[in-house]
Amino acid sequence: MTARLTIEYDGAGFAGWAAQPGRRTIQAELEHALATALRRPVALTVAGRTDAGVHALAQVASHDREAAPLGSLNALLPRDISVIASQPAPDGFDARRDATSRAYCYRVLARSGRPALDRGRALHWTHPIDLEALDACAAMLAGTHDFTAFTPTDTYHVRFDRDVYGAHWTHGDGGEHVFWIEADTFMRQMNRVLVGTMLEVARGRRPIERFSCLLDGRPRREAGLTAPAHGLYLAGVGFGGRRVLRHPSEPDQLA
Amino acid sequence: MTARLTIEYDGAGFAGWAAQPGRRTIQAELEHALATALRRPVALTVAGRTDAGVHALAQVASHDREAAPLGSLNALLPRDISVIASQPAPDGFDARRDATSRAYCYRVLARSGRPALDRGRALHWTHPIDLEALDACAAMLAGTHDFTAFTPTDTYHVRFDRDVYGAHWTHGDGGEHVFWIEADTFMRQMNRVLVGTMLEVARGRRPIERFSCLLDGRPRREAGLTAPAHGLYLAGVGFGGRRVLRHPSEPDQLA
Repeated sequence: MTARLTIEYDGAGFAGWAAQPGRRTIQAELEHALATALRRPVALTVAGRTDAGVHALAQVASHDREAAPLGSLNALLPRDISVIASQPAPDGFDARRDATSRAYCYRVLARSGRPALDRGRALHWTHPIDLEALDACAAMLAGTHDFTAFTPTDTYHVRFDRDVYGAHWTHGDGGEHVFWIEADTFMRQMNRVLVGTMLEVARGRRPIERFSCLLDGRPRREAGLTAPAHGLYLAGVGFGGRRVLRHPSEPDQLA
Repeated sequence: MTARLTIEYDGAGFAGWAAQPGRRTIQAELEHALATALRRPVALTVAGRTDAGVHALAQVASHDREAAPLGSLNALLPRDISVIASQPAPDGFDARRDATSRAYCYRVLARSGRPALDRGRALHWTHPIDLEALDACAAMLAGTHDFTAFTPTDTYHVRFDRDVYGAHWTHGDGGEHVFWIEADTFMRQMNRVLVGTMLEVARGRRPIERFSCLLDGRPRREAGLTAPAHGLYLAGVGFGGRRVLRHPSEPDQLA
């Protein structure tokens, strides 16, 4: 038997997804709730492992037990985790191996006054912000690139090229700017270094040409600062080549 | 000297806007911060007094001192209040008397799993929801009506008709439905009873004809339940007849 979970969480109170002894993690909370609901130990596999402080709108995980009732699970979980769906899945479904893409977004709130309602949910940006520069940076990301510059030097990754299926910024009211990106997989901190580096361009501290050079396997030190975790959200997971983000200019299916 | 403040707040931790002895209120926190920043007592006048638990995206208040620096104010305020703008205003400007409209929104999240990221920021709705019925109810609201049915019987209001300049629902992804309304002024709990009653129609518990009848001075008992405060936001304040909400089908200026 196999089941699939869709999960929303507020990352602020967690040391990330992955279970670690003595730390509050999303995986440990969920496995504990599942074991209680199903009266047996449950091991979760996740599509997009998130770091400490990173949020999720629609994380996907799988396990090899029957699907637990949604209401029971949510009654057993703390308020900062919610299971949105708990469904039977085809035998052998594996959220990590079967996922064909992950989509993330990063929220920036560019205004003088700090956020009250969105505190801990968006990066508060008080420096200059050149929106055309942000858009131009994002437009360079689609395709296959070597993202060595965008992950810590001390790394467990062995392969540094990633296929970016789409990336763009949306610019809303009240100074809210959101970066959206979908790729096959992401390296640790990759989105946060991408955003940190784009914001240095948008602030006028880094010429845009030096951003494009970074996509060709440059060392980490040449990229910018790592943007804080609290602006980042795992937005969704694609399966079977179906895209999560549907920008008007992009195809719904992966090529 | 006169100054104008634009303020965002998370209403969860407050007994509402208005100062009350021994209670944590937005007015008291702001007046205390202003008095510290300006080294003199400051009395605030507000455009839209909000009840306990109600949030604000862009509340407007005025006082008769010089404008305090934004950074100092925010450094003196708790995390759940943020001043977005603190500016000099024309002498005699009065946020309450000069406001020509107030706009509110109410967020409903219609899905099985409770919200994790938006906990305390939207009403979680697990019952049936007929979106066409919601839209039809909202379409009846524009114009002048007697809203006696939509405020508690035990009231300090002396006049019960209000001019609604526009009202509509927006339907987003993931079951998010937002009610938007702009009027000259609102009575206490008016928006929450409007939303509670519309949701009874959308759930199939009240025929839509019985909603339209309520706009003609019916008693409170004929309307529906009061929706909880945590879904409600003061979205903005209009001055000089300029509208806050710009629905595509509505004029920007008041008639």
